[in-house]
Amino acid sequence: MYELLKTDGLAKRGRLHTVHGVIETPVFMNVGTIAAIKGAVSTTDLQEIGTQVELSNTYHLHVRPGDEVVKKLGGLHKFMVWDKPILTDSGGFQVFSLAGLRRIKEEGVYFNSHIDGRKIFMGPEQSMQIQSNLASTIAMAFDECPSSVADRDYMENSVNRTTRWLKRCKAEMDRLNSLPDTINKHQMLFGINQGGVYEDIRVRHAQEISELDLDGYAVGGLAVGESHEEMYRILDAVVPHLPQNKPTYLMGVGTPANILEAVERGVDFFDCVYPSRNGRHGHVYTNHGKMNLFNAKYELDTRPIEEGCNCPVCRTYSRAYVRHLLKAKEMLGMRFCVLHNLYFYNKMMEEIREAIEAGRYKEYKEEKLRRMAEGE
Amino acid sequence: MYELLKTDGLAKRGRLHTVHGVIETPVFMNVGTIAAIKGAVSTTDLQEIGTQVELSNTYHLHVRPGDEVVKKLGGLHKFMVWDKPILTDSGGFQVFSLAGLRRIKEEGVYFNSHIDGRKIFMGPEQSMQIQSNLASTIAMAFDECPSSVADRDYMENSVNRTTRWLKRCKAEMDRLNSLPDTINKHQMLFGINQGGVYEDIRVRHAQEISELDLDGYAVGGLAVGESHEEMYRILDAVVPHLPQNKPTYLMGVGTPANILEAVERGVDFFDCVYPSRNGRHGHVYTNHGKMNLFNAKYELDTRPIEEGCNCPVCRTYSRAYVRHLLKAKEMLGMRFCVLHNLYFYNKMMEEIREAIEAGRYKEYKEEKLRRMAEGE
Ligand SMILES: [Zn+2]
Ligand SMILES: [Zn+2]
Repeated sequence: MYELLKTDGLAKRGRLHTVHGVIETPVFMNVGTIAAIKGAVSTTDLQEIGTQVELSNTYHLHVRPGDEVVKKLGGLHKFMVWDKPILTDSGGFQVFSLAGLRRIKEEGVYFNSHIDGRKIFMGPEQSMQIQSNLASTIAMAFDECPSSVADRDYMENSVNRTTRWLKRCKAEMDRLNSLPDTINKHQMLFGINQGGVYEDIRVRHAQEISELDLDGYAVGGLAVGESHEEMYRILDAVVPHLPQNKPTYLMGVGTPANILEAVERGVDFFDCVYPSRNGRHGHVYTNHGKMNLFNAKYELDTRPIEEGCNCPVCRTYSRAYVRHLLKAKEMLGMRFCVLHNLYFYNKMMEEIREAIEAGRYKEYKEEKLRRMAEGE
Repeated sequence: MYELLKTDGLAKRGRLHTVHGVIETPVFMNVGTIAAIKGAVSTTDLQEIGTQVELSNTYHLHVRPGDEVVKKLGGLHKFMVWDKPILTDSGGFQVFSLAGLRRIKEEGVYFNSHIDGRKIFMGPEQSMQIQSNLASTIAMAFDECPSSVADRDYMENSVNRTTRWLKRCKAEMDRLNSLPDTINKHQMLFGINQGGVYEDIRVRHAQEISELDLDGYAVGGLAVGESHEEMYRILDAVVPHLPQNKPTYLMGVGTPANILEAVERGVDFFDCVYPSRNGRHGHVYTNHGKMNLFNAKYELDTRPIEEGCNCPVCRTYSRAYVRHLLKAKEMLGMRFCVLHNLYFYNKMMEEIREAIEAGRYKEYKEEKLRRMAEGE
């Protein structure tokens, strides 16, 4: 159940009650693709950096270790030892981006595994069954992610199919949640809005799926190559047609600036691999912009990555040490940068929530963007 | 200052007082080659797994980030944020094992860097200066590690030179410890016994260096390819000729069984890369022998790596999860195995100390070896 606690312009301060506890929104979900955050970060570490929701990828877990294995082990929460909410994606994005040869049919998608080439079929029912086996807190509907350059005809057909698939997802989840051996009988379902860069298709689709009274709604198919301005234009058009009294999730986005802009447009759920991927390359986020810790100027720098940062790395270690670890290709250097970056994102979401509560979101956003653009 | 608290046969239970705190012996030093434990293990982690002494490698740190850099940053303790004792090796072993073309002269060794091929000279004074810059708690003397198959003539000449080098190390350390800008003016010096598999050369050398009244004595040049029995034979011969009222360090050794046998022969300092190297390959130590966590039989195994183990991994995660991480090549899997293995070694040393105190070392050793050989 979602409570809309406060609005400030279109920005929403919400609270999603789940069977695994409360999610305070706006929230940034920390991505642990195959039930682990890349960079040797454990769920014990996540407890220390303010993580509210962990996000895992259905397709990857289906391939390895297998969702049946995870089910036998008691579900993802027991498997990775994480008692807070977990969101799983539908697997659709990976099917459309990783898989080789594929055929899209009304019943679902036939494709070859990206690991061993074996034939796999995945449709709405299969995606729901896998996510039910994983027993995540929130499951995502199985949708098609059409190419961002698909023409209008293709996009209209695709979006209509995605709506039909969404109805099948909902029916299948209702069935699964009522079975006696289902681990999480309170699994929630978020639907996904598609339509590429065609505002009218997006809006019509948003209106259609809003009628299904799902637990939340995502905007998918963005941050796939279009400009930031185009993404903001789509959000301006579509978010007002999604239920305000439900979570609004912008999938796979993005930079701190993207998040700040999207919150202003009414989005309150986010996920992105940037903080962990950039961290593994020694790129760290600060309130004064991004730093490349490989830079020679940090060789003798005894300051923490960011002064005043309360993350487990900045509380203890210096830029000079982290730089040395990165240069020496020690895994520990990557781990430190990932921890700091995830903390930075989680902390920014906390600031965002406070700013909305105080009714000063616009000022907060502008000040934050200005400082980050300033550089060191 | 070393206190010999108790003996049980030749086994020693000791206590070394250092400027960075007390070391309870027998002790296993945890190897952090370039100021980091491989496997994304931080000094914060070391605090949780019972580590008493961290060991870093002089040669690696000299090459990167450079000992002058570490000195400017306040020494190794400040650099890696570790306030307990640190032992640095002399660099000799790496010079003799890693470097390309080299020439050994009375003054020291001329060789090429294994990283960029540039010419480097290292002699007793250089090794002491580098270790003084690193400001470790205990410095090791610069010695030659001759090939284990060197003939008697070569070995005698080499050992005599190592004695002359040791005297130069002692003089240079005394000088460095008296300089105003030396970070650790209480740096200790351990001498190293050499002589390959020639017992008489070893014993004569042990007697000579014992006269120098150093802070501790190491047996070097073992575990380099000779059989375990040969190693134990050398220890039987040489340890009684090293001062009992000083720390006795067997360098680079070894398996749990090697340590148990060497303690019985009077050794009380150890270091080895096995627990971290094996951990990174998914091989973990238990009281019932080694396990390969890649094995399919752990796929659904919800038990910890070792039941009853109190390490941060076993307290929380299952074999099934660690196996999944290893199979998926997630760094976190390696980190978990390294943490468990180092804890296993550190915990075994604690048991050893208790057994010596209780005067039942022999029974403890036999029982431990029997259980480990039993397998799961
Ligand atoms: Zn930080
Ligand atoms: Zn353990």
